[in-house]
Amino acid sequence: MSSGGDIMAGKEREEEENMAAWLLGIKNLKIQPYHLPSLGPYDVKVRIKALGICGSDVHHFKTMRCANFIVKKPMVLGHECAGVIEEVGSEVNTLAVGDHVALEPGISCRRCNLCKDGRYNLCPEMKFFGSPPTNGALANKVVHPANLCFKLPENVTLEEGAMCEPLSVGVHACRRAKIGPDTNVLIMGAGPIGLITLLTARAFGAPRVIIVDVDDQRLSIAKNLGADEILQVSTNIEDVGEEAMKIQSAMGSGIDVSFDCVGYAKTMSTALNATRSGGKVCLIGLALSEMTVPLTPAAAREVDIVGIFRYRNTWPLCIELLRTGKIDVKPLITHRFSFSQVEVEKAFETSAGGGNAIKVMFNL
Amino acid sequence: MSSGGDIMAGKEREEEENMAAWLLGIKNLKIQPYHLPSLGPYDVKVRIKALGICGSDVHHFKTMRCANFIVKKPMVLGHECAGVIEEVGSEVNTLAVGDHVALEPGISCRRCNLCKDGRYNLCPEMKFFGSPPTNGALANKVVHPANLCFKLPENVTLEEGAMCEPLSVGVHACRRAKIGPDTNVLIMGAGPIGLITLLTARAFGAPRVIIVDVDDQRLSIAKNLGADEILQVSTNIEDVGEEAMKIQSAMGSGIDVSFDCVGYAKTMSTALNATRSGGKVCLIGLALSEMTVPLTPAAAREVDIVGIFRYRNTWPLCIELLRTGKIDVKPLITHRFSFSQVEVEKAFETSAGGGNAIKVMFNL
Amino acid sequence: MSSGGDIMAGKEREEEENMAAWLLGIKNLKIQPYHLPSLGPYDVKVRIKALGICGSDVHHFKTMRCANFIVKKPMVLGHECAGVIEEVGSEVNTLAVGDHVALEPGISCRRCNLCKDGRYNLCPEMKFFGSPPTNGALANKVVHPANLCFKLPENVTLEEGAMCEPLSVGVHACRRAKIGPDTNVLIMGAGPIGLITLLTARAFGAPRVIIVDVDDQRLSIAKNLGADEILQVSTNIEDVGEEAMKIQSAMGSGIDVSFDCVGYAKTMSTALNATRSGGKVCLIGLALSEMTVPLTPAAAREVDIVGIFRYRNTWPLCIELLRTGKIDVKPLITHRFSFSQVEVEKAFETSAGGGNAIKVMFNL
Amino acid sequence: MSSGGDIMAGKEREEEENMAAWLLGIKNLKIQPYHLPSLGPYDVKVRIKALGICGSDVHHFKTMRCANFIVKKPMVLGHECAGVIEEVGSEVNTLAVGDHVALEPGISCRRCNLCKDGRYNLCPEMKFFGSPPTNGALANKVVHPANLCFKLPENVTLEEGAMCEPLSVGVHACRRAKIGPDTNVLIMGAGPIGLITLLTARAFGAPRVIIVDVDDQRLSIAKNLGADEILQVSTNIEDVGEEAMKIQSAMGSGIDVSFDCVGYAKTMSTALNATRSGGKVCLIGLALSEMTVPLTPAAAREVDIVGIFRYRNTWPLCIELLRTGKIDVKPLITHRFSFSQVEVEKAFETSAGGGNAIKVMFNL
Repeated sequence: MSSGGDIMAGKEREEEENMAAWLLGIKNLKIQPYHLPSLGPYDVKVRIKALGICGSDVHHFKTMRCANFIVKKPMVLGHECAGVIEEVGSEVNTLAVGDHVALEPGISCRRCNLCKDGRYNLCPEMKFFGSPPTNGALANKVVHPANLCFKLPENVTLEEGAMCEPLSVGVHACRRAKIGPDTNVLIMGAGPIGLITLLTARAFGAPRVIIVDVDDQRLSIAKNLGADEILQVSTNIEDVGEEAMKIQSAMGSGIDVSFDCVGYAKTMSTALNATRSGGKVCLIGLALSEMTVPLTPAAAREVDIVGIFRYRNTWPLCIELLRTGKIDVKPLITHRFSFSQVEVEKAFETSAGGGNAIKVMFNL
Repeated sequence: MSSGGDIMAGKEREEEENMAAWLLGIKNLKIQPYHLPSLGPYDVKVRIKALGICGSDVHHFKTMRCANFIVKKPMVLGHECAGVIEEVGSEVNTLAVGDHVALEPGISCRRCNLCKDGRYNLCPEMKFFGSPPTNGALANKVVHPANLCFKLPENVTLEEGAMCEPLSVGVHACRRAKIGPDTNVLIMGAGPIGLITLLTARAFGAPRVIIVDVDDQRLSIAKNLGADEILQVSTNIEDVGEEAMKIQSAMGSGIDVSFDCVGYAKTMSTALNATRSGGKVCLIGLALSEMTVPLTPAAAREVDIVGIFRYRNTWPLCIELLRTGKIDVKPLITHRFSFSQVEVEKAFETSAGGGNAIKVMFNL
Repeated sequence: MSSGGDIMAGKEREEEENMAAWLLGIKNLKIQPYHLPSLGPYDVKVRIKALGICGSDVHHFKTMRCANFIVKKPMVLGHECAGVIEEVGSEVNTLAVGDHVALEPGISCRRCNLCKDGRYNLCPEMKFFGSPPTNGALANKVVHPANLCFKLPENVTLEEGAMCEPLSVGVHACRRAKIGPDTNVLIMGAGPIGLITLLTARAFGAPRVIIVDVDDQRLSIAKNLGADEILQVSTNIEDVGEEAMKIQSAMGSGIDVSFDCVGYAKTMSTALNATRSGGKVCLIGLALSEMTVPLTPAAAREVDIVGIFRYRNTWPLCIELLRTGKIDVKPLITHRFSFSQVEVEKAFETSAGGGNAIKVMFNL
Repeated sequence: MSSGGDIMAGKEREEEENMAAWLLGIKNLKIQPYHLPSLGPYDVKVRIKALGICGSDVHHFKTMRCANFIVKKPMVLGHECAGVIEEVGSEVNTLAVGDHVALEPGISCRRCNLCKDGRYNLCPEMKFFGSPPTNGALANKVVHPANLCFKLPENVTLEEGAMCEPLSVGVHACRRAKIGPDTNVLIMGAGPIGLITLLTARAFGAPRVIIVDVDDQRLSIAKNLGADEILQVSTNIEDVGEEAMKIQSAMGSGIDVSFDCVGYAKTMSTALNATRSGGKVCLIGLALSEMTVPLTPAAAREVDIVGIFRYRNTWPLCIELLRTGKIDVKPLITHRFSFSQVEVEKAFETSAGGGNAIKVMFNL
């Protein structure tokens, strides 16, 4: 907020200064001015300090779409973020200027049946940072409802605050799957979401976790992050039966809950086969829309399938898990970039490249 | 069990008298003597009076197998039954000779983790009437644990008692899907299980039920049994989207729970599409093992899939529902046969023929 | 709301017209003008047509307080109401002028953790019609959020709409206690809430309901409304054990869920004693604050105690239960009054008198 | 059981050798021969090696009764035990001679509705070690069902195996109260069960635990075992309100679940007051039968009361928690005694004396 000695009014100057990363076309990302909406009585203005790139951001960057959501006009990207409060609305009494906060990116209508029932992540009128047509948060500043900004304690950094967003997916999945000290866990896929789910399942008390991938480098990261067992598998769907048996034998006891963090026919088939009678398969990864899977043999063993969409009411728990050190997300942050035209492009290319890039983070 | 002063001992005579319908090969069913196991202290001996034919019996009759279960040696068929107590074991004090009882057909081990946790229907050591290699109950008499024989009140007939078995599938499904006055219901398939599920969902308080089938005759039966809406559909998988919209529009409000009582890719796809965000699809029918379905769009709306395998702890409720008249199963019994070689064959052929045969019942 | 060229502006005239029943002191109730707040974009203005008197209204009328809530300045009474939409805010598209609606009386903050988790009835910032210091709805008109006004179908009257409020207490209790076709029910107290709970438990499928009171006249009303068993008891705490046994013996089988709709040490003790191991006691009535009860013997049989405070998300179900005729609340409306100074006073005196007055209703 | 000095076969001689601690009258405990029942096909014979004294054993020792259970004839005491398999029944294939096992002490009927529903701890026909009239396990050997004997891994000692019994109470309570990383916990009472509950709540992921007692020595043990906050309180019921506020202020955030491990009017009142709206109070301690508590204010905040009786299906989890080191019970074992007449009496007197004796353990 430093400024030279000019005659402009503070408010106007500020708007001028606020820059954001706009997606203008496929792989066409430009830092341009972003005029913020006015601050409502229950809103806060946040200077964004850390923002992570998510797989969906990369999808938008590369294809101008993600699942059914299509970018039809220029849109600011980014939704995993944290920052510092710069201004508070007239009715806000839980936050103060200078507070460090992590931002929950989705604003639900709070009026529909799903919102009133507490399942606001399913709200049909959700406005979500960087999900078309709603602008995202890769910007100097954003205006956001105060009740979606969660104060970070001193020992949780702003980067960790930004990690609350992917962490929330793991927390919501572990809650829906009822993970606890009684549940042995299988995780299909050792990508960012698979690793996050590993950390979360552990924090929820899962006594034993096995993680499965085709990539041995990712598996060794998983091992370092605390997986009890790792298993490298093929992409060949024919191998499902044998691999499911290997999983069961590596674990000794039955798999109570499987998380498919990929969403292919093969990963889902393996999960359905490997899970014990009466267990659950939690589908988080959404790589494929339609898939051919052995659904009825699983149903006939009362293996239920639980769907996951984003999260609800997860930030306070994420912050608590970070505060107490039960989860350490720092090893997941593999690359850092600053907020300049050159760096922003490089950051998205890095994230899109996959490989050893797990979480790519902006420091603004 | 009283006997006069005649030449044969009671026990031997009785064994001689006990006849059963043995499956000897494909479509080869013979009434032959059946030597019962001895009566344990917690067992009762039951004279079977009514027995219904189930789809799985027909599968065995026609193919010597059903799903993974293969008939490898002669086996007595039948598991939907009721009868009259003829003898009680020394420790049985809840039943008396002459009591009318409905029989729960599966004997679980009661020692494994699943049994001790109350989910005994998933017991890996289950011995189930007429599921190979366990003999069934299409016999004059059977020996069965007393705690699996449930006394029928005066106003519930033995035929209705036998219907507790298929009714139990509906009850277990409605319990697992948490049907109540808040849940609008879609049923895919108007066969015996679809119709049973319709009756049960109603008894659990479902305010509105729509039932879908390709056969208009079955749909008109469903209408008579109390469906609010019926919809005739095609077998063409291309029509899923449009038909799902017709279902939603016929119901006005969202579908909270769908029951797929068929188990085809098309029925399951329609159910997944038609169910509202946050709802459930309950898979009961198991026509196909593997199927191609739009699993991830459903998961991304947190539409969960609930599997159903038989039932647990359902007989007391079934009997109560029959006693109070909340469910009337009598219209489902469309054909009756006696227990003779000729009639038994005719009964199985009738049931196998489908058409207007819903439930084929033996009166022994 | 445009008006012709008359002397007064429309707005002022309207305010002048809006009259309400103000509680000015103990038993001092005056009809006086009530200046409505302005209509927000998500609000509607409703002409109140039916309003029922609740026990808490009577408490306020007689003592200027109810539980911890104290009336410190003049306040409009009343919260069980229905009416006709007169004006809709700019963003309201689900309701139209002329619609008949039932009003949910509590406005929660929608920002706190409890609201976001769907348990908004526990919101610490709740503003509730006629609960100090929030004005109630015994007025010609009120302004209310559109999402708390529920459209009535043609076959549900405005009086029935007003009954959704007490009905909601029963619905919330039956949901929390998980009433279904498996649960035999005991109800302590045959007053308005006991009778409502009886009707609701029935609609949720409870197979058998016994209701207990000291007053045989109320019990005969309960019998007429569909109780399977009624039992007249004493007020003597010594009789708890014996009466609990009578209850169990009248029901034959165990009591799965008890509702204490009174809230005395004796009613609660009887409920705790009569409920089977593993069952629940649901405490709705709040007559006493502190009570002496045999808590540990119940805990040692894992009889849980479930508290009830108002309701959440109940209006759609209440309306559905009225629409389908599963619940008929009309027999509960025993007295009717119009909205004049004389009648209002008479109505409150009638309701306070108890006796055969179950629900006293205003027609405005 | 008499025998001469002779050539007897091994089997008979063994019976001769089996000695047990019989309770003959108040504080009259004698080591005398104990003739074991014969070994059934599903039973094992276990040489007891470690046995802990429970509060209920002390009650029996001091008063010949505990709650409603009265010792009417000589009975072997003890139920917290572990040992080594000496013989297995003909149908046992999951255990072998020489295996170290922890014993679950209660044998349920496995036939009643509660058993079949998985809530076998509530079985009305439970036969439980050392609960009259069933003999206990403070003996050289016992015969017990194999499915209630759980194999200990190498890194879990027999003493730790015996601790599975009290640990099970904590596990069952944490399961029923749904403890997880979202639940801040209050524990009333720092006695053995309070401390066990502290360890278990931690293992279930409770982020913050406060423990309250009148005794500062016990509180400092609790602090050492990992309580975040401790609070010394008075026995004066007048102080409830103030102390509840101190608890809330020490915790910063609300109490989601309280465990009353004492069962006095004061401890329960404090728990009810201190727990947040929508939370739970779990009643484990059963010091008083009847108590005067502010039940309705808690119910009006939907604070539910959850009862705890023993446990079900807890041994595998207890063993897993010990194996992984998530729970360390060794600091709770404060005193050890051998199995001789003198030592047995001393052990019971030590346990009865309270003070710094937390768990008194026999090594047989």
